[in-house]
Amino acid sequence: MRLRNVKNAVEIVNSSKYVITEPEKYKGEYNKLFNNDNPIHLEIGMGKGNFIIDMAKRFPNVNFIGVEMYESVLCRAIEKLNDEELDNLRIIRMDAHNLGEVFDHEISTIYLNFSDPWPKARHAKRRLTSHVLLPIYDNIFKGDKIIEQKTDNVGLFESSIVSLSTYGYVIEEISLDLASTGKENSLTEYEAKFMSQGVKINYLRAIKK
Amino acid sequence: MRLRNVKNAVEIVNSSKYVITEPEKYKGEYNKLFNNDNPIHLEIGMGKGNFIIDMAKRFPNVNFIGVEMYESVLCRAIEKLNDEELDNLRIIRMDAHNLGEVFDHEISTIYLNFSDPWPKARHAKRRLTSHVLLPIYDNIFKGDKIIEQKTDNVGLFESSIVSLSTYGYVIEEISLDLASTGKENSLTEYEAKFMSQGVKINYLRAIKK
Repeated sequence: MRLRNVKNAVEIVNSSKYVITEPEKYKGEYNKLFNNDNPIHLEIGMGKGNFIIDMAKRFPNVNFIGVEMYESVLCRAIEKLNDEELDNLRIIRMDAHNLGEVFDHEISTIYLNFSDPWPKARHAKRRLTSHVLLPIYDNIFKGDKIIEQKTDNVGLFESSIVSLSTYGYVIEEISLDLASTGKENSLTEYEAKFMSQGVKINYLRAIKK
Repeated sequence: MRLRNVKNAVEIVNSSKYVITEPEKYKGEYNKLFNNDNPIHLEIGMGKGNFIIDMAKRFPNVNFIGVEMYESVLCRAIEKLNDEELDNLRIIRMDAHNLGEVFDHEISTIYLNFSDPWPKARHAKRRLTSHVLLPIYDNIFKGDKIIEQKTDNVGLFESSIVSLSTYGYVIEEISLDLASTGKENSLTEYEAKFMSQGVKINYLRAIKK
């Protein structure tokens, strides 16, 4: 997701108490950062943060880390956090390809919400469920590997099912119309907009033991 | 699929040269029936036969067996076969739950086209991809177990993905809109009608080694 460049975005992001500016320092020791042994859930591509902020409020006994590449987007999340006191939420500005340098077998669940679909076949490896990224996730997961994905993009969803399944993940739960299930669900910015337009959201939960 | 009862349906079905009336006799020896060692593909719920008749014409080096519960439907398939000479096609009137009494590790691929969705949770076990039926298929498959499914029914498709995946199948190929893929595809009666109405057809190919 790209937004118009926000002036001083880098400064705004780096000065937030929610942002971890040197994440490699905590590699393998994020439980110390959070000062507890609660499970750590990661959202890759947190965008403007609605989903992960809502999740952090709903599940105080889970630690949440949101990663996002673009400062301009993160600024919006940080604005929303100005009046919040969420000890169980942190943010890292980074590229998902570098996750292995930042985490070491300490993540319980990964959320992929409305990720870039990279529709062209020659860009398929960039999709966040590709066989380039899944081995990286293997190294940051602790115990059962759980991925939850939401997307309106049918091509990305189809590609994810095949990629996860052929990589050894079991599809435990799936819906081609998440809203129709009545499942409790923290909405992303995209999702709220799509739902108001009647666009169907695809959802899956995959596990690799 | 139920149609109005066709008069003398049982007689019409049993007198067709395509119909195997005592299928248990060939258990483990269907290659002798076909007089060759070509792979045998099975369609469960062949209905009026369009799909399997077309497949038998397209792939002369594959043997096809269609099973169907209802004589009244089979009559329609048999009518279509009156002017055909297809040595690689046979039909059995039977319930899928009894497949283990008829075949013994000799089927290469199973097709499930527009199967009854059994939408109520208490009927879930009757779905042809349920964990009641999958162990029966285990006993009739030879080598890699391959299931191809087509359905317009989203609930059945979601249920099938989870059921197959949790049973050890890998989803190798999937489409939420088969027509859009340009994949060559033998149409069932339902499918031709649905496509003309713009209904999206879900497709998957799953394999268990």
